[in-house]
Amino acid sequence: MNDAKTTLGHKILAAKKQKKWTWPEIAAKLEHSPVWTCAACLGQMSMTEATAKKAGKLFKLTDDEVELLREPPYRGSLPTAVPTDPLIYRFYELIQVYGTTWKELIQEEFGDGIMSAIELDMTLERQADQKGDRVRLTMTGKFLPYKRY
Amino acid sequence: MNDAKTTLGHKILAAKKQKKWTWPEIAAKLEHSPVWTCAACLGQMSMTEATAKKAGKLFKLTDDEVELLREPPYRGSLPTAVPTDPLIYRFYELIQVYGTTWKELIQEEFGDGIMSAIELDMTLERQADQKGDRVRLTMTGKFLPYKRY
Amino acid sequence: MNDAKTTLGHKILAAKKQKKWTWPEIAAKLEHSPVWTCAACLGQMSMTEATAKKAGKLFKLTDDEVELLREPPYRGSLPTAVPTDPLIYRFYELIQVYGTTWKELIQEEFGDGIMSAIELDMTLERQADQKGDRVRLTMTGKFLPYKRY
Amino acid sequence: MNDAKTTLGHKILAAKKQKKWTWPEIAAKLEHSPVWTCAACLGQMSMTEATAKKAGKLFKLTDDEVELLREPPYRGSLPTAVPTDPLIYRFYELIQVYGTTWKELIQEEFGDGIMSAIELDMTLERQADQKGDRVRLTMTGKFLPYKRY
Amino acid sequence: MNDAKTTLGHKILAAKKQKKWTWPEIAAKLEHSPVWTCAACLGQMSMTEATAKKAGKLFKLTDDEVELLREPPYRGSLPTAVPTDPLIYRFYELIQVYGTTWKELIQEEFGDGIMSAIELDMTLERQADQKGDRVRLTMTGKFLPYKRY
Amino acid sequence: MNDAKTTLGHKILAAKKQKKWTWPEIAAKLEHSPVWTCAACLGQMSMTEATAKKAGKLFKLTDDEVELLREPPYRGSLPTAVPTDPLIYRFYELIQVYGTTWKELIQEEFGDGIMSAIELDMTLERQADQKGDRVRLTMTGKFLPYKRY
Amino acid sequence: MNDAKTTLGHKILAAKKQKKWTWPEIAAKLEHSPVWTCAACLGQMSMTEATAKKAGKLFKLTDDEVELLREPPYRGSLPTAVPTDPLIYRFYELIQVYGTTWKELIQEEFGDGIMSAIELDMTLERQADQKGDRVRLTMTGKFLPYKRY
Amino acid sequence: MNDAKTTLGHKILAAKKQKKWTWPEIAAKLEHSPVWTCAACLGQMSMTEATAKKAGKLFKLTDDEVELLREPPYRGSLPTAVPTDPLIYRFYELIQVYGTTWKELIQEEFGDGIMSAIELDMTLERQADQKGDRVRLTMTGKFLPYKRY
Amino acid sequence: MNDAKTTLGHKILAAKKQKKWTWPEIAAKLEHSPVWTCAACLGQMSMTEATAKKAGKLFKLTDDEVELLREPPYRGSLPTAVPTDPLIYRFYELIQVYGTTWKELIQEEFGDGIMSAIELDMTLERQADQKGDRVRLTMTGKFLPYKRY
Amino acid sequence: MNDAKTTLGHKILAAKKQKKWTWPEIAAKLEHSPVWTCAACLGQMSMTEATAKKAGKLFKLTDDEVELLREPPYRGSLPTAVPTDPLIYRFYELIQVYGTTWKELIQEEFGDGIMSAIELDMTLERQADQKGDRVRLTMTGKFLPYKRY
Repeated sequence: MNDAKTTLGHKILAAKKQKKWTWPEIAAKLEHSPVWTCAACLGQMSMTEATAKKAGKLFKLTDDEVELLREPPYRGSLPTAVPTDPLIYRFYELIQVYGTTWKELIQEEFGDGIMSAIELDMTLERQADQKGDRVRLTMTGKFLPYKRY
Repeated sequence: MNDAKTTLGHKILAAKKQKKWTWPEIAAKLEHSPVWTCAACLGQMSMTEATAKKAGKLFKLTDDEVELLREPPYRGSLPTAVPTDPLIYRFYELIQVYGTTWKELIQEEFGDGIMSAIELDMTLERQADQKGDRVRLTMTGKFLPYKRY
Repeated sequence: MNDAKTTLGHKILAAKKQKKWTWPEIAAKLEHSPVWTCAACLGQMSMTEATAKKAGKLFKLTDDEVELLREPPYRGSLPTAVPTDPLIYRFYELIQVYGTTWKELIQEEFGDGIMSAIELDMTLERQADQKGDRVRLTMTGKFLPYKRY
Repeated sequence: MNDAKTTLGHKILAAKKQKKWTWPEIAAKLEHSPVWTCAACLGQMSMTEATAKKAGKLFKLTDDEVELLREPPYRGSLPTAVPTDPLIYRFYELIQVYGTTWKELIQEEFGDGIMSAIELDMTLERQADQKGDRVRLTMTGKFLPYKRY
Repeated sequence: MNDAKTTLGHKILAAKKQKKWTWPEIAAKLEHSPVWTCAACLGQMSMTEATAKKAGKLFKLTDDEVELLREPPYRGSLPTAVPTDPLIYRFYELIQVYGTTWKELIQEEFGDGIMSAIELDMTLERQADQKGDRVRLTMTGKFLPYKRY
Repeated sequence: MNDAKTTLGHKILAAKKQKKWTWPEIAAKLEHSPVWTCAACLGQMSMTEATAKKAGKLFKLTDDEVELLREPPYRGSLPTAVPTDPLIYRFYELIQVYGTTWKELIQEEFGDGIMSAIELDMTLERQADQKGDRVRLTMTGKFLPYKRY
Repeated sequence: MNDAKTTLGHKILAAKKQKKWTWPEIAAKLEHSPVWTCAACLGQMSMTEATAKKAGKLFKLTDDEVELLREPPYRGSLPTAVPTDPLIYRFYELIQVYGTTWKELIQEEFGDGIMSAIELDMTLERQADQKGDRVRLTMTGKFLPYKRY
Repeated sequence: MNDAKTTLGHKILAAKKQKKWTWPEIAAKLEHSPVWTCAACLGQMSMTEATAKKAGKLFKLTDDEVELLREPPYRGSLPTAVPTDPLIYRFYELIQVYGTTWKELIQEEFGDGIMSAIELDMTLERQADQKGDRVRLTMTGKFLPYKRY
Repeated sequence: MNDAKTTLGHKILAAKKQKKWTWPEIAAKLEHSPVWTCAACLGQMSMTEATAKKAGKLFKLTDDEVELLREPPYRGSLPTAVPTDPLIYRFYELIQVYGTTWKELIQEEFGDGIMSAIELDMTLERQADQKGDRVRLTMTGKFLPYKRY
Repeated sequence: MNDAKTTLGHKILAAKKQKKWTWPEIAAKLEHSPVWTCAACLGQMSMTEATAKKAGKLFKLTDDEVELLREPPYRGSLPTAVPTDPLIYRFYELIQVYGTTWKELIQEEFGDGIMSAIELDMTLERQADQKGDRVRLTMTGKFLPYKRY
């Protein structure tokens, strides 16, 4: 089923390249943020019926493909447990280096609990810098305290 | 050597608890950001001589311990390749779900390359929200293009 | 740090055995449910100050041990990724057999999202049965929908 | 052989979507519980001849497909030992966090043994809640004591 | 806790060697079968109070050690997922070679279900043979059918 | 090559189902034991020319398929190192629980060496029992002593 | 997507063999170094539009294939985490033997930081030697210091 | 035995720090290259008797420690198969990205064979660069052709 | 590419079976040893142009297949890191049991270094024995001393 | 228990170094081959009572240590599944490269079965060679045919 989503993702990427659209442009057309829009097109998020239909028109998809965009995916499709691609690995490295720091700081500020990975949103921007521009990644996730019952 | 850093980290945590200092307070005393300060105290960053001495006074460390704070660590000390602690696992999950999205967006905006995990800084804040406060994690890392030589 | 929690857990188990208390009895004294109480004593949950002090009196713990009960643990301490103990393995087997079924049923009923493992409570009871008594395990966790942003 | 079962599962899911049937409705037609029915259709349980024939009519299956529904599967088909999908991972996390608690509580109540994962049944329901509806998962499994021989 | 059981097992093995008892002799004294007796002494089964006391007298154990014999162990303590010791590896090899055969034959004879590894007993004997004596291992386990509910 | 053997196994299983033959019946026709016969048909044993020809007539195989039955397989084809199927896993669990016991008992009785997994035969039978019938699995393997040279 | 790059790599290798070109010759035509050129043709680097067009003419590629040469790959495509091919394994062995030495020497010379694997170039040459010619591999990568922020 | 070498390595590092010697200085005293000297002191190479004695005087080692420097180590002591330390990981990443390129180029130039990791030497230098200094790592290893026999 | 070599290996095995040639016979025709010849035909060694052409005539291969025989393979193609086939596993077991012995004996006799796996040849013969014939495997590999530079 | 054997092995190695005995000299004193003798001293083989007593006198061992030499070990003690030490790794590499060749040649010569790793002996010698001396490793193991029963 996910293979179908991956295939569909490639079809969307091909259409995007042909039209020379950027993700922010596509996101604006679908009325969602660029990060979520890109994740949904790559098959890691599910669209509502309305959004899926808009996407269907945009990328000239079949009815089955529109339907597929609405289905919740089996998420998490990196080919190895530790990613090999350098761009993606750097984020894994951040967990190895900062994981215990995040735990310490979140727990000091909020108490015992976690930052939700579901009730979460994210932006990714260019930050101009004279020594070389920077990637700015911001995520905000709801704090969920551990229940004591 | 890293075991020594871990042991030192526990000593610092104990001192911190006794003094009832928060990480922002300690960071202010060491004149660094809270994220970097916490990471350095937990043994994942190395301090300059000046900072290590300040930390030594703050936490009443021995000369050897001050020396240890200056040494570059063998980084990345989670006990398993896939973290089991729920708070830390959520970040691993984000890589599984958003990894390909980050790759797509960074490459569209910057070209072929990566976000540096070395030339990088990070903040972690509370964001008030009526439906439940949120954790706001921001990281900015220099974009490094792949050389063509 | 978790090793300290494990050691403390063994001390509590020894006290419990000596006093011939059951987990429901201990839970009643601490005014929490038996499942949460047992998990907290085994070092997988953190207690409030008040509960930790009660537990301290009950099991004759030192001040440091009372303090330790309040600290959030590094959770998830099975010795192998796939558990070898037959009682615990059976739950892993249920994920292997029913995992896709749970996903299908939860998504049909609630839409795209997850059952929270944080905002969750649990009971474990004996259910009398003529063909042999049964273990009845019930868990209710808040449904968290994936945000579309 | 399991690949055949997976393919058949997808065919059934497609038929279900077209007919707009829910799992409880299908379960009622097959005269089994929704959890078991869903698991059997996804290829993790084997049907009796009578049930398989009913399912065959319901979903317009070929004789070979009806036959396939009756065969015991090679069970346990998650693509990785530690599941990556967030919904399914949460159950794995519960084992990491509560595994030793379940062991302690079952053994206190029943003695040395296990909860059977074979002589077991399960329900999954929505539990209304003002703060957000909850998933209620209940499983009862026969206790099997370790023989002393 | 299991480390304690392992240590106790070594103590029992030392006593056994000193007394020059065989496992069948010890089993006769404890009124159990040799296989179960050996497994219990090595820390993989739990004894009843009566048996543990007998064992305590036999091997001159302390009260704590007698108590330890009664506790259900965290079972399954081979140092690697695939055993390296040649004697134990051969059994793993049999699963690799005969696993699908056992599945086929048990399911043909009994229907969909498993041979219980809990309601199970086992004998291990020498079988004289002119071409070289043979090890005869027999196990009988209750068949447990998968419930259809 | 093994894929060819697996495909052939499926063809034989299909023929067997159509003819409604049991493994003991097929074994009788091939003049071998049911366990060996089933293992050979599933592609884990190699047949002699005579037996392969008999099997070829029985299941209406092509000359190439008869040839394939004679070839030694690349043995051991479970899809994961730790089996996920509950029926097969139970045997893995027995190794985890009884592995050290088997080692202890075989070495006490025979000295340092192993039970051969090659010079070995096996039977699998139903054992009637009022509390539920049982699977009886018996294996006898030649003891091979470690040479001292 | 990477599969497409791999397929394209094989097509280029076939063309190269037919033309009897060496990598230095191809590199000269594309005006890049042999190491980068080979990596780009094998699908581990992305070409600029100009270079991709030159390569397209050279190897008689389709427009889609020229396009594919420009796309950033999902890098890191060895089939196993520890490489099995002896030539490639030797480099892994060098990390095992010299990894801590590199860390020690780089940190002594430059301070806490890393050698970039992105801002890096590489040459591989034959070094004549009477006792047998030698492979000379040189890499220079920018030193990136850990930021203290 | 290797633990002893690691402990000795830490003792040498401490002496080095106290004396404020650099690796090139130590190498000059021992009359070997800095890379080999550092590797030998960290326990990954074995010294001759003469060199070990010199090192013994330099670092004030005991006779047993001098002896230990001469012993061939069990090499390859990174704590995980895929290194987690960012500095060391970058070299692993180079294998993932350039492994097939090295194979292609070495085989084109030399034929079927490998670059020896034993008959090999290495230098590591600073290369001044206006945009930021660079690490220059050079290794030359004898080419060993596969024998055809 | 290796898949192509594997496919070619199967074609050669089929031709060999049809012709009823043994490996020593084929080796004699190709003027190489049986071990090397078999390895080369199975795709783990590369042939010279002359040998590949001879093999091409012998087995009636196409020009592309002759070409393929000359290409260096990506070596090491067992399906799992620890082999499951009993014949091949036994060699892995020998490493587990004798690995440290080989290290000790080679180093005592030759000093610090290795037995080359590249400059190596091998024979495999039947050794008649009244108690059952034996496999005699002999390998001689050049000793390569670790350089001290 | 094996840790005890490892510790004893180190004690024997120390005594051997002090006495400046070689393994062939020790083997002559114990009246066994050098390979077996070394393996037994390193804790991978068990001695008879007579041999253990001789070894006890030779190395001045305690009674408990003599006893320990007689006990069958838990064999196979390399620290990782794929060995990292280059000398030992080369043998693993030979399995990866020649494993299928050995299988093919043994089966052609002997039929379906294995070379025993138990009824096996081994020699390791220096073979003088003008181009550099070679290690000659010879093993002969009884062929064990698969039973057809």
